[in-house]
Amino acid sequence: MQTIDVGLIGLGTVGTGVVQILQQQAELIAQRLGARLRLVKVATRHPQRERAVRLPAELMTADALTVIRDPHIAIVVELMGGYEPARTYLLEALRQGKHVVTANKALLAQHGQEIFQAASTLGVDIGFEASVGGGIPIIRTIKEAFVANRFLAISSIINGTTNYILSRMSDQGLGFREALAEAQHLGYAEADPTFDVDGIDAAQKIALLASLAFGSWVKQEAVYTEGIGKITQLDIAYARELGYSVKLLALTKLEQEQLDVRVHPALVPVESWLASVHGSYNAVSIFGDMVGRNMLIGRGAGALPTGSAVVGDIVDVARNILKDSSGRVPPRSYHEHSLGSVSLKDINEVICKYYLRFQVLDQPSVLASISGILGQEGISIESVIQKGRGVAHGDTVAVVMMTHEAPERSVRRALQAIQTLPSVQGETMRIRVEDTVED
Amino acid sequence: MQTIDVGLIGLGTVGTGVVQILQQQAELIAQRLGARLRLVKVATRHPQRERAVRLPAELMTADALTVIRDPHIAIVVELMGGYEPARTYLLEALRQGKHVVTANKALLAQHGQEIFQAASTLGVDIGFEASVGGGIPIIRTIKEAFVANRFLAISSIINGTTNYILSRMSDQGLGFREALAEAQHLGYAEADPTFDVDGIDAAQKIALLASLAFGSWVKQEAVYTEGIGKITQLDIAYARELGYSVKLLALTKLEQEQLDVRVHPALVPVESWLASVHGSYNAVSIFGDMVGRNMLIGRGAGALPTGSAVVGDIVDVARNILKDSSGRVPPRSYHEHSLGSVSLKDINEVICKYYLRFQVLDQPSVLASISGILGQEGISIESVIQKGRGVAHGDTVAVVMMTHEAPERSVRRALQAIQTLPSVQGETMRIRVEDTVED
Repeated sequence: MQTIDVGLIGLGTVGTGVVQILQQQAELIAQRLGARLRLVKVATRHPQRERAVRLPAELMTADALTVIRDPHIAIVVELMGGYEPARTYLLEALRQGKHVVTANKALLAQHGQEIFQAASTLGVDIGFEASVGGGIPIIRTIKEAFVANRFLAISSIINGTTNYILSRMSDQGLGFREALAEAQHLGYAEADPTFDVDGIDAAQKIALLASLAFGSWVKQEAVYTEGIGKITQLDIAYARELGYSVKLLALTKLEQEQLDVRVHPALVPVESWLASVHGSYNAVSIFGDMVGRNMLIGRGAGALPTGSAVVGDIVDVARNILKDSSGRVPPRSYHEHSLGSVSLKDINEVICKYYLRFQVLDQPSVLASISGILGQEGISIESVIQKGRGVAHGDTVAVVMMTHEAPERSVRRALQAIQTLPSVQGETMRIRVEDTVED
Repeated sequence: MQTIDVGLIGLGTVGTGVVQILQQQAELIAQRLGARLRLVKVATRHPQRERAVRLPAELMTADALTVIRDPHIAIVVELMGGYEPARTYLLEALRQGKHVVTANKALLAQHGQEIFQAASTLGVDIGFEASVGGGIPIIRTIKEAFVANRFLAISSIINGTTNYILSRMSDQGLGFREALAEAQHLGYAEADPTFDVDGIDAAQKIALLASLAFGSWVKQEAVYTEGIGKITQLDIAYARELGYSVKLLALTKLEQEQLDVRVHPALVPVESWLASVHGSYNAVSIFGDMVGRNMLIGRGAGALPTGSAVVGDIVDVARNILKDSSGRVPPRSYHEHSLGSVSLKDINEVICKYYLRFQVLDQPSVLASISGILGQEGISIESVIQKGRGVAHGDTVAVVMMTHEAPERSVRRALQAIQTLPSVQGETMRIRVEDTVED
């Protein structure tokens, strides 16, 4: 039986998972692939460190270049993360004629155009299923299974940390800080959680998915991004009362030849599929013009789920090696000369329903003033919740409104005007409502 | 740009969808595939009949063999359905060196071993994504994305007709006959609904999925199969009260080297993903030892969703033609010499929780007699609902019990004994409970 040599750069959580899978499933993979995958070199900053997996000392190196330049290695697996030296190593591996498998969504979101074009030009494969949604086969689904579809929309929960925090706030009534501390304690959140909590991780992933789905490169910086840091227990409770759950959505829609790409907290109907995605699970709902709405749910992170996606890609690349069919599927889904450029929609032009929570002094005229300003901007109100009469003088009460569909621009203008009302205290909470994510 | 010629046999619902997609998405597919797909011959019993799609008269033929034997055609798409002449045509197409794409799960469940082996031996591709779950990419996920996983379980809703009927019974309070009539009126159910309602369609599909996942051929006749014909509005209401929805599940589990494969109505927790799959949607929950639990939801039928899967397969085969890499992925997921044989678990050995509804005369000793017999068989009771005191003399009341886990054999024996009690009237309703389908 033929053997294909694999080299690995990076032995963190996912790298360890990949080693475990390659060892434990060697026989199973051989039965399905018809060849053996052999891990021949592993580069890590601390080759001597004790690991959860056993690796012969002679495989270990501190020098990634010896992996990249090893003439026996056909597939280089990059799992070191970050921008540099990952970018340099990855491009060098491609230049050395190696096929590459990576889980590095930050790198691809930032330098994907350069990397994918290099792979295309050099006729080598690059697998990156593990870069979005952990074990969920979303990239393969966009590029292969749904190849006959023009994509209309993708709505996703693709950051497990924030979904865990919001789930705990929603199900156990924890506050944001408590839930975050718990997520950190369990290893779901980093010591510095900014990247996840502020939505940057999700923005990188949706930028990548949008680029594949629409054949037009979407820069992460162009993705409108809002995190979950301001979501309170109060908003989650009101949302629930209105029949909604609060989720951090990463979504993209093609509307009138414009691409709407954004990451922000959103109210989704409690009975929707997305609302039923709890804890550290991820989910991607994808709408194709032919296949309709599909939803994929699974573990969005973790050594073995993400490792499963990495090894799935290794096998995919290995099948191409065995059949001499590298480049069989273009890395960006479209052939290079068919890649286009779709203009992005300004967030001000986006139209949706809004959940608004005003903190007001309990005075008779407040509701009239607020709804008057909303009316002037053409924003009509679907429902209002006002509670908490009888509070002490000077305290504020919450007025919660659900609007009908309105343009972001009008809502921003209205909120600015409302903020100047003397009876409106503190910042108004505004959360977009996505209740058409399922049909 | 290179052109690949495609021939189609069968112009029913799915065939028409495939033609529409090939026409409407020609440009898009060319941008992604790097070649053009050209439909050059279409065989149908009534070539002159008016259709929802426009096809030049010279493409049409009543003779399927002229499609199969056309030397220009590289890919034959079989969408006529049924066993014969579909089997003969398909095997002849393979012998002619054609790659084949089919949606015919009945044929594959019955003759898959012969067909897949022929494709392997002849070195041609056979695509059959559309045979299970319409547009849902489940076959590709088992064979490719999750190739690094040993599968532990698949739990699925893969018959849209029965899911529609159960959803209408559950959400709108319709009776079985009403819901069935509605499904027939809307075209979701056939005039003779036996095939769907009795679970045969689901059994064919789960037999096929189990065969792919476990590398051991599962015959449809070996799948324990129960339909939904006996489910009443009453059971749906009691299930809801207990926190469950009633779904027709097709499932398979590998336990102690034995394969448990069955189709039957089951109670699933209302908050589970499977319970949230409504109407004609299908869903497949798949558990891999590395990737954990994943769930795929989408349209399980219909011209365009199923057509999307067929065209996805055509493109897949076409990519192999362009790269001369046919046979890149073995049809049954494992290479021929690695296919094995796993023994099937006897339904009597299956252990699960049960929902039991007894119709009894309202006498004081009944509950004691029933629970006494269950106790003798080692079946313990988790909860009991008894209502309807004060009914007219001679009328029956429902006693509903939820048991703890028990072997099917014991439950059958207990129910036989209970049936002989003079106060127990009519047939006892027994529905299995699957509350570990998600973790």
